[in-house]
Amino acid sequence: MPARLLVVVKSGGAAAMPEWRAAFAHALPEAEVRMWGDPEIVPAAVTHALVWEPEAGALARFPNLRLVISTGAGVDHVLADPDYPRHVPLARMILPETRDGMAEYVGMAALMLMRDMRTIARQQAEHHWRIPPEMPLARRTRVGVMGLGALGLHAARYLATLGFQTSGWSRSAKTIEGVTTYHGMGQLPGFLAQCDIVVNLLPQTADTVGLPDRARLSLLPRGASLLNAGRAAHVVTADLLALLDEGHLHTAMLDVFDIEPLPQDSVLWSHPSVVVTPHCASTPSRTDRAHRAAALIRLAETGAPIPDLYEAARGY
Amino acid sequence: MPARLLVVVKSGGAAAMPEWRAAFAHALPEAEVRMWGDPEIVPAAVTHALVWEPEAGALARFPNLRLVISTGAGVDHVLADPDYPRHVPLARMILPETRDGMAEYVGMAALMLMRDMRTIARQQAEHHWRIPPEMPLARRTRVGVMGLGALGLHAARYLATLGFQTSGWSRSAKTIEGVTTYHGMGQLPGFLAQCDIVVNLLPQTADTVGLPDRARLSLLPRGASLLNAGRAAHVVTADLLALLDEGHLHTAMLDVFDIEPLPQDSVLWSHPSVVVTPHCASTPSRTDRAHRAAALIRLAETGAPIPDLYEAARGY
Repeated sequence: MPARLLVVVKSGGAAAMPEWRAAFAHALPEAEVRMWGDPEIVPAAVTHALVWEPEAGALARFPNLRLVISTGAGVDHVLADPDYPRHVPLARMILPETRDGMAEYVGMAALMLMRDMRTIARQQAEHHWRIPPEMPLARRTRVGVMGLGALGLHAARYLATLGFQTSGWSRSAKTIEGVTTYHGMGQLPGFLAQCDIVVNLLPQTADTVGLPDRARLSLLPRGASLLNAGRAAHVVTADLLALLDEGHLHTAMLDVFDIEPLPQDSVLWSHPSVVVTPHCASTPSRTDRAHRAAALIRLAETGAPIPDLYEAARGY
Repeated sequence: MPARLLVVVKSGGAAAMPEWRAAFAHALPEAEVRMWGDPEIVPAAVTHALVWEPEAGALARFPNLRLVISTGAGVDHVLADPDYPRHVPLARMILPETRDGMAEYVGMAALMLMRDMRTIARQQAEHHWRIPPEMPLARRTRVGVMGLGALGLHAARYLATLGFQTSGWSRSAKTIEGVTTYHGMGQLPGFLAQCDIVVNLLPQTADTVGLPDRARLSLLPRGASLLNAGRAAHVVTADLLALLDEGHLHTAMLDVFDIEPLPQDSVLWSHPSVVVTPHCASTPSRTDRAHRAAALIRLAETGAPIPDLYEAARGY
């Protein structure tokens, strides 16, 4: 086992390396930090990897890897690699900033969807003055969060603080103050039937891909809106567009896409009922994430328990 | 004095009368309710008026008026009438729904301005994917509320709950938990200098018209944004556009305008740094307002103190 710490970083390309390096120099000065693909890297010397979407087979070439850290809250993009070395622990990157950024994005989106800001923006573009016939209030608006993990739980609490009638659905039963909780597949239809706005914050696992499918989204009340800040794979775009075009759903606000950057010719950009944000819901700064990665590496080196580790049994 | 209650209503025109009538029939069944301008109205029989922008001199023609109620939170549009009968008490319409609607609009707008949703919307129109270089967080964003009356106080508290570094400025000193307060003209420059986002919720009085003028708005940090949900007369449009065009201000989000509906040819509709909403920040339903007006009329009839009365000494 190599004694020295060698961290390889794959996130943001060469442009991002100065920021990663500077932050690690401060937070983990004893480590050498190399950019992914640097030809001078000796594979056997690599001890840690901080990655986003590593190429299939690449991590398996480092025989002395002690910990892999995702640069985001999800690890599905790492586990998409069929050769991922399953004996190496894999950590999710969840900072207070990740939770707060997501909660604030979800809170903003819920208020925007409640007040139909998409229509108000279109009316501005058309120089058309039209006061909405009724002012909606958070306390009369039901927002449901699918997925009550680290991000969903915090977002649900934030929505409740904002005054929304807040509910949440998760695989296993949870109790959250101020939030009505549902769990398991049996309670999913009842949960969906009472959401004016549904927020997808599920982790991406074999069980959750396609979970909010066309049949289930049809259980939402007519005129409901959807916010997807989880993973694009959860919702099939064609199903979503069909429900919008039929008028069953009013607005879809999307932060995640099957292909990112969203291709220029995607119909989502110009669909009148779709609001696109560029996967910006919650990405803490590189400096904050490097500090978090350094802290996780220190914990791992001392043999302490590492928070937010991937667990194969639950799939995230 | 007429024994019977006769309420004249001027708000929303003929189209709105069925809703006003139905709500009063429920909340104040003993009253006769007539639409403003109804030729069958005997002026001496009118006891109460529920109004928005009454024509100059019109209220003075009702000799037995006992109470005038604004259909909104402000009374400047009533007092613009030089012949307003000053001996008649004038009540502002402030419901829990008014406060909550405004707080939620302000909270939404602050999150949208913090995250530069105007730019993100433009990029969607251009099919342009660009992840913002840094994710802003409420706890790192300073939002200041000008005016800490019934609406401003509640909005400031809501902003603090959302996690913003919240401050407020008012004419007289106030203490609000979780909010840094400034007061008086002497502290106005210091207040403005620390606002990333400034929210105007001043009442419209002789002292506040033009208060956030070009010189004062120049004290905001470069790149700050402005939300005006108070009155259009507070901010001169030409000053605002100059500060936006110079890049001193980043975005102006406006809900109030010198002329409403905002004329089709107004430059505000298409200015790239302006977000227009159609005076929809906080207007409770007619039903809710009729019930509130009925409650105020009942209080007045029994001689009980009436809340939210206009006070000439303070100007609102």
